Amino acid sequence: MASKAKIGILGASGYTGSELVRLLLRHPNVDLALLTADRRAGQAMRDVFPQFAPYELPQLVSIDSVDWAGAKLDLVFGALPHATTQKVVTDLLAKAPKTKVVDLSADFRLSDPEAYKYWYGHDHASLDLQREAVYGVSEFYREEVRKARLVANPGCYTTCAQLPLIPLLKAKAIAPDEIVIDAKSGMTGAGRSAKEAMLFSEVSEGFHAYGVGQHRHMAELDQEFSKAAGRKVLVSFTPHLLPMNRGILSTIYVRGEGGKSPEDLHAILVKSYANEPFVHVLPFGETPQTRHVRGSNMTMIGVAKDRVPGRAIIISALDNLVKGASGQAVQNMNLMLGFPETAGIDQVALFP
Amino acid sequence: MASKAKIGILGASGYTGSELVRLLLRHPNVDLALLTADRRAGQAMRDVFPQFAPYELPQLVSIDSVDWAGAKLDLVFGALPHATTQKVVTDLLAKAPKTKVVDLSADFRLSDPEAYKYWYGHDHASLDLQREAVYGVSEFYREEVRKARLVANPGCYTTCAQLPLIPLLKAKAIAPDEIVIDAKSGMTGAGRSAKEAMLFSEVSEGFHAYGVGQHRHMAELDQEFSKAAGRKVLVSFTPHLLPMNRGILSTIYVRGEGGKSPEDLHAILVKSYANEPFVHVLPFGETPQTRHVRGSNMTMIGVAKDRVPGRAIIISALDNLVKGASGQAVQNMNLMLGFPETAGIDQVALFP
Amino acid sequence: MASKAKIGILGASGYTGSELVRLLLRHPNVDLALLTADRRAGQAMRDVFPQFAPYELPQLVSIDSVDWAGAKLDLVFGALPHATTQKVVTDLLAKAPKTKVVDLSADFRLSDPEAYKYWYGHDHASLDLQREAVYGVSEFYREEVRKARLVANPGCYTTCAQLPLIPLLKAKAIAPDEIVIDAKSGMTGAGRSAKEAMLFSEVSEGFHAYGVGQHRHMAELDQEFSKAAGRKVLVSFTPHLLPMNRGILSTIYVRGEGGKSPEDLHAILVKSYANEPFVHVLPFGETPQTRHVRGSNMTMIGVAKDRVPGRAIIISALDNLVKGASGQAVQNMNLMLGFPETAGIDQVALFP
Amino acid sequence: MASKAKIGILGASGYTGSELVRLLLRHPNVDLALLTADRRAGQAMRDVFPQFAPYELPQLVSIDSVDWAGAKLDLVFGALPHATTQKVVTDLLAKAPKTKVVDLSADFRLSDPEAYKYWYGHDHASLDLQREAVYGVSEFYREEVRKARLVANPGCYTTCAQLPLIPLLKAKAIAPDEIVIDAKSGMTGAGRSAKEAMLFSEVSEGFHAYGVGQHRHMAELDQEFSKAAGRKVLVSFTPHLLPMNRGILSTIYVRGEGGKSPEDLHAILVKSYANEPFVHVLPFGETPQTRHVRGSNMTMIGVAKDRVPGRAIIISALDNLVKGASGQAVQNMNLMLGFPETAGIDQVALFP
Repeated sequence: MASKAKIGILGASGYTGSELVRLLLRHPNVDLALLTADRRAGQAMRDVFPQFAPYELPQLVSIDSVDWAGAKLDLVFGALPHATTQKVVTDLLAKAPKTKVVDLSADFRLSDPEAYKYWYGHDHASLDLQREAVYGVSEFYREEVRKARLVANPGCYTTCAQLPLIPLLKAKAIAPDEIVIDAKSGMTGAGRSAKEAMLFSEVSEGFHAYGVGQHRHMAELDQEFSKAAGRKVLVSFTPHLLPMNRGILSTIYVRGEGGKSPEDLHAILVKSYANEPFVHVLPFGETPQTRHVRGSNMTMIGVAKDRVPGRAIIISALDNLVKGASGQAVQNMNLMLGFPETAGIDQVALFP
Repeated sequence: MASKAKIGILGASGYTGSELVRLLLRHPNVDLALLTADRRAGQAMRDVFPQFAPYELPQLVSIDSVDWAGAKLDLVFGALPHATTQKVVTDLLAKAPKTKVVDLSADFRLSDPEAYKYWYGHDHASLDLQREAVYGVSEFYREEVRKARLVANPGCYTTCAQLPLIPLLKAKAIAPDEIVIDAKSGMTGAGRSAKEAMLFSEVSEGFHAYGVGQHRHMAELDQEFSKAAGRKVLVSFTPHLLPMNRGILSTIYVRGEGGKSPEDLHAILVKSYANEPFVHVLPFGETPQTRHVRGSNMTMIGVAKDRVPGRAIIISALDNLVKGASGQAVQNMNLMLGFPETAGIDQVALFP
Repeated sequence: MASKAKIGILGASGYTGSELVRLLLRHPNVDLALLTADRRAGQAMRDVFPQFAPYELPQLVSIDSVDWAGAKLDLVFGALPHATTQKVVTDLLAKAPKTKVVDLSADFRLSDPEAYKYWYGHDHASLDLQREAVYGVSEFYREEVRKARLVANPGCYTTCAQLPLIPLLKAKAIAPDEIVIDAKSGMTGAGRSAKEAMLFSEVSEGFHAYGVGQHRHMAELDQEFSKAAGRKVLVSFTPHLLPMNRGILSTIYVRGEGGKSPEDLHAILVKSYANEPFVHVLPFGETPQTRHVRGSNMTMIGVAKDRVPGRAIIISALDNLVKGASGQAVQNMNLMLGFPETAGIDQVALFP
Repeated sequence: MASKAKIGILGASGYTGSELVRLLLRHPNVDLALLTADRRAGQAMRDVFPQFAPYELPQLVSIDSVDWAGAKLDLVFGALPHATTQKVVTDLLAKAPKTKVVDLSADFRLSDPEAYKYWYGHDHASLDLQREAVYGVSEFYREEVRKARLVANPGCYTTCAQLPLIPLLKAKAIAPDEIVIDAKSGMTGAGRSAKEAMLFSEVSEGFHAYGVGQHRHMAELDQEFSKAAGRKVLVSFTPHLLPMNRGILSTIYVRGEGGKSPEDLHAILVKSYANEPFVHVLPFGETPQTRHVRGSNMTMIGVAKDRVPGRAIIISALDNLVKGASGQAVQNMNLMLGFPETAGIDQVALFP
C-alpha cells in the first residue's frame, strides 16, 4: 500500500525487536520493510520467533548488507545492544538523513557527554547525534518528539519511575533527598542472551536483587529527576529480578514537602495524567499489579499513605516490553510520523 | 454508534467472560451493552478485573434483573457454568427470539439427548434448543454457524483435538481404534473458582493428570469423531494440568490406515487448512509450542514420523481462552452477524 | 521408642503444619503422636498431603476430641489461625500444664495488651499466657526459650527483618527513623485457604504489593525494634507477593549513625552471627537470593554500600516456611526439650 | 573421620553434581574429598552454587590435576557430559583400579556396542568397561550393583518408565507392541548449559515436545524392555519440557494381555514393590503428581482403567534430579559400599 510508512527494525531477533514486530504487524499505517539480525541473517523471522510463522515478513538480513539510501525507509527502530548502536545510527543518518530513528538502546539517552563517559567508561562516538537526540518519555516530551529526527527511547525501569515522580518533583511536592525506589522487573528486561544466570532453572522459584548500590539506569534517573527538580537529585534505587516474564513494579518511598500530604501527591498525579491515554492513576489508597498491564502500553500508578507521618508510598506498574520499550517506541513513532498517538498500541492487557 | 451490534456477556466475572471483554473492547463492529455477574452485581468491571480500569464498560448486573425484550441485544455470549446455562438461554430466547446466542458452556454441545443424560446425569431441560443448536468449530461448521441462532461453542480440549483429527478421520487416513490423545492444559482452563486444588502453591512447580480414564470432554470427542469417521470412535484421552496460565497442547498418537504414511497425513492437513486464517500447519517434522499462540486465535499443528513403523505423532497447540473459548466464540459471532471472520481476533501471539 | 519425645501438631492440614511433619518425620528425637485438622478429621494425612503417602502417621483428629491430660504430650505445635489459638492453648495448658507449646500463630507475639487490642480489634482472651509467653527469635532469646513453657514463634516477615536489623539497632549503628523495609514473599506465606486472589491464574506471571502503609506484621516489628533501640521505632514496611512458593527477601534501606559506614554495619553483623548455625552473613557487597535457602533453616544476609553517601542497602533472605515458621519452631523445640539445636533442621537448601 | 568413605564428584558445577553435594553433605558415612569442575577450577563451590556458602567443601579442581592413585578415593561419581566420561573413567580406573565408580552419564548404559554406535554415531572408546558396567536401576539390579566396580546410573526418563513397565513386561501382562509413553520433564533435566532455548523467558508460561519420534533415551528403553519381555520391544515415546524445575511424569498407555485387567496390572505392581523403600504404588485409580516427590528419592506409580476396553493408563512420577539421577546414584553407592540402602536419601518430599 503506497500510503503506508516504510519501517525498519534493527535487531529483530531480540525481545524488544519481536515486540515491535508484534505491534507493527497490526498497525494500520505502516509496512515492515526491513528486519535485521546479524547472527540470524538469511533466516526467516519464523525461525527465530515461531509465533510469526503464520505471517508474511521480510527475511532477516545483516546490517552491513543494507543500502540505507536505497531503502528509503521512513523510520527505523534501533533494538541493538549498547555501543553498537551509536555507530550504526551514525552511518545510517549519514547515508539517509531523512530517515527518522527511534533508538531503544541507552546510547542516546544521556545528554551530558561527561555523564555518558562516567557510566559507560568511554567517550561517545557521535557527539553531534547525542546533542540532537530527544529523550522520549512521550508524556513529558511530546512536542519535542513530534519534531525530532532521532529519539532516545527511555529505559524500562526509568520510565516506570519517572511517570510517578517527575510531576511531583516539578511541583516541588516531595523531598528530593529522601526518595527510595525499590524496583522489580520480569526476566524479559534482561534480554535474550544465553547466560547461565538467566536459565529457567536459575531464575524460577526465586528472587534476588542485582546491581545493588550502583546501576547504569541511575544515570538516566539522575538526569531527568535533576532537570525536573531544578537541582541535583540522587535517589536510592535497587533493581530486582522477578520469576516472571513481563512487568516492572516500582515501590517508591517519598516524604511530602511544603506540607504536602499523600492525598495531595495523589491529586497532582491525577491532574497530570487526566488526559493521557497510557497513564492511569488509581483511586487513592489502591495500588496496581503488573499482571493488569501485561501486553498493553498502559502504566498504572497508585498512591497510599504510609503510617510514618508525612510519608507516602507510590507504586507504579508497566509492561517492560511495551510502555517500557517497544510500545513507547511505537508511541514515539506515531508522534514523529503524525499518526494518531494510540495507533497500533491500544491493546487491552492480557490477564490472566 | 447506531450501526454497531449490541452485545451482552453473561458471566463476565470469569476468565472466558473477561477474555470476551478484552477482545470485544477492540472489535470494530460491536458495542458492549450488557455485562452480567450475579455474585458481583452492582460492581464495576474494574473491581472484578482491574485491567479494565482505564476503559468505560457497563456496570455488572444480575441475570434476573435483565429485561431481555427491552435490551434489544443483537447477540449474547453465555459464559456461565454448566446446567445454569440451559435455563437462562431458554428464558432469554423465549423473551427475545431474535437475539442470537453463542454459548460457551457444555450445555448445547451434545446433540443426542441420551448421550447428554449419560454424561451429565440428568435430562436436558430444553430439548428443542438442544436440537436447534449448531456445534461451532468454525472451520467445520462455517455455513451452519452463519445461519444459526444458537451456537454451542466447543470445548478447549476438544477443539485442540478435532482440528488435527477430523480431516484425517474424514479421509479415512488413520485407524480409528488406535488413537491416543495425551492433552495438557494451562490452569485458566479450570476457571476462576476458589478451590484449594487451584491455589498457586498447589499448582506451581508440579504437574499431574486428572479425570484419568473418564472425563466429560470425551462426550464431545465421541460425537464429532464418530460423525467424521462414519462409525463409532472411542479414543484414549488423558487431560493434565500445566503450571502455567494459557495454552493447550495435545500429543496425539495415530496409525496410518490404507497405506497412509505420516507424510500423507501431513499433506491432508496442509490441504485442509490452506485457506484458514486461524489454523497453521507447520512443515513436516516440526511441532508447535503453546507459547507461540498465547493470546492469539491461532491453532498450530505439527506432524512427525514415529519410529514405530506406520505410526505418526501429531501435536496441536492453541490458547484455551482464545481459540479454545472466547476467540472462537467471537469468530462464530462474526459469522453469525456477517462481520469479517477475523474482526477483533487478529492479534499476534504474545511471546515472550 | 520410649525415649523419644511425644509431639502433637494442631492444624496439620495447613502449610506450616505439613512443613512441621516433613521436618519431624526425620527428627531423631521425636515421635509424631497427634495430628489435628478439624475440617479433615477422620482422614489420613495422605488424603490432605499426598507426599506423606509412603509414611506412617497418626490419623487426623479434631481438636475437641483430644484428651490433653491423657495424651501426655511433651510438646505441642500450634499451627492454627489467629484468635482460635489463644482459646485452644489456654484449654490445653489448663488440662496438661506440663506440656510445652510452640505457637506459630500471632496470638502470643505481642507482650503489650494495648498493642494487641489496637492491631487485632479485641481484648486478648488469655492475658496470663500472653505474659508468660516468650518471643522466639531463637538467636535473640535463646536462654529464655530454653526455660519457656510457651513460645510465640515469630512471623516470617519479621524474622527476616529482625535478623539483620536488631544487632544494628542494639549497637546504635543506624538511624532508627529512616528505615525502609521493602519485603517480598512467596505465596505459601499466605497459607492454604481457598481464596480467589490466591488462585494460580491470579498470581502467576505478576507481582503486587498489599497492605500498603498498614499491616499487622508491623506490630511485631515495632515491639522488637523499639526494645532493641531503647526508644520508639517506626519503620516504613511494604509487603509484596512473589509468583513463587517459598522465600522472603527483604531489601532494607538504612542510614549509618555515629559515623558508621556500610562496612561497619557489615562488620557488626559478621561478628553477631559468627557462631550461629542458621544465619550466614555474605562477604561485603554480595547479596543473597531466596532460592539458595529454599527448604533450609538458613538465613542469608548481605550488606552493600548505597551510592547515596552514608546509606547502606541490606538484604536478607530466608524460607518463610522453614526459618520463617516451622524450622524456627523446631529450633525452639530443640532448645526447650534439650536436643541439639540443629537436630532435624540441618537440611541443605534445595536448588534448583 | 577415618571410618568414612572418601568420595569424589566429577562435574560438580552442574545440577546432578550439586544435587550429589546436597545429599552427601548430610550422608552419615561419607566425606566429600574431591570436587572437579574444569571451567570453574580454582573457585569455591559457593561461587558456583551459593547455597553451599555456609558449608565447608573442597575447592573445585580440574580433572587433569587429579592424581587418581594418590587420591585413594573409595568411590567417584561421574556427572560429566556424554563422551567425555568414557575417557575420564578409563583413565581413572587404570590408575586407581580399586576405586568404584557410579557414572551418571549415558556412556556405559548400553551393553551392545552396535546399539551404542547406532545412537551415538561413533565407536565406544572403552569396550572392556562397557562390558563390565552394571546397569543400575537399583530395584532391578540390586545384587549386581552390590558387586559392581562400575555402575551405569540410568537416565531420568527411563527410570520413570522402567519402574512401572518392567514388572509388567516380565509378567507378560501387557502387549509389548502397543505401549505409548508420553513423558514430561522439568527443566533441570536439560542441565545447566547456557542455551537460548533454555532461558527463563523462552520456557516459562509454555509447553512443548522435543525429539519427537526419535530420541536417544529410547536406546535404553529398547534394551531394558526387550530384556524384560524376552523379545524385541519398540515403544512410542515422546518427551516434553514443563515450565518447572523438578519432576518427571510419564503417562503410559497399555493394553492388558492374556486377559489381564487394569486391576491385575495394579496388583502386579503392588506386589513387586511391597518392600521397596523408594517406590510407592498408589491405590487403584489414584494417580501421582510430581510435586509430591520433589526433592525426595521416591517414585510414585498409579494405575487407572481406561474407558477403552482392555486398556489401562499408568502414571509414574519422580524427581529427575533425585531418583532420576543423583539420588539413585547415592542409592547405588550405598549398595556398592555396604551402607544402609536409604542412608542420606530418606528426605521427605518438599511440598509446597
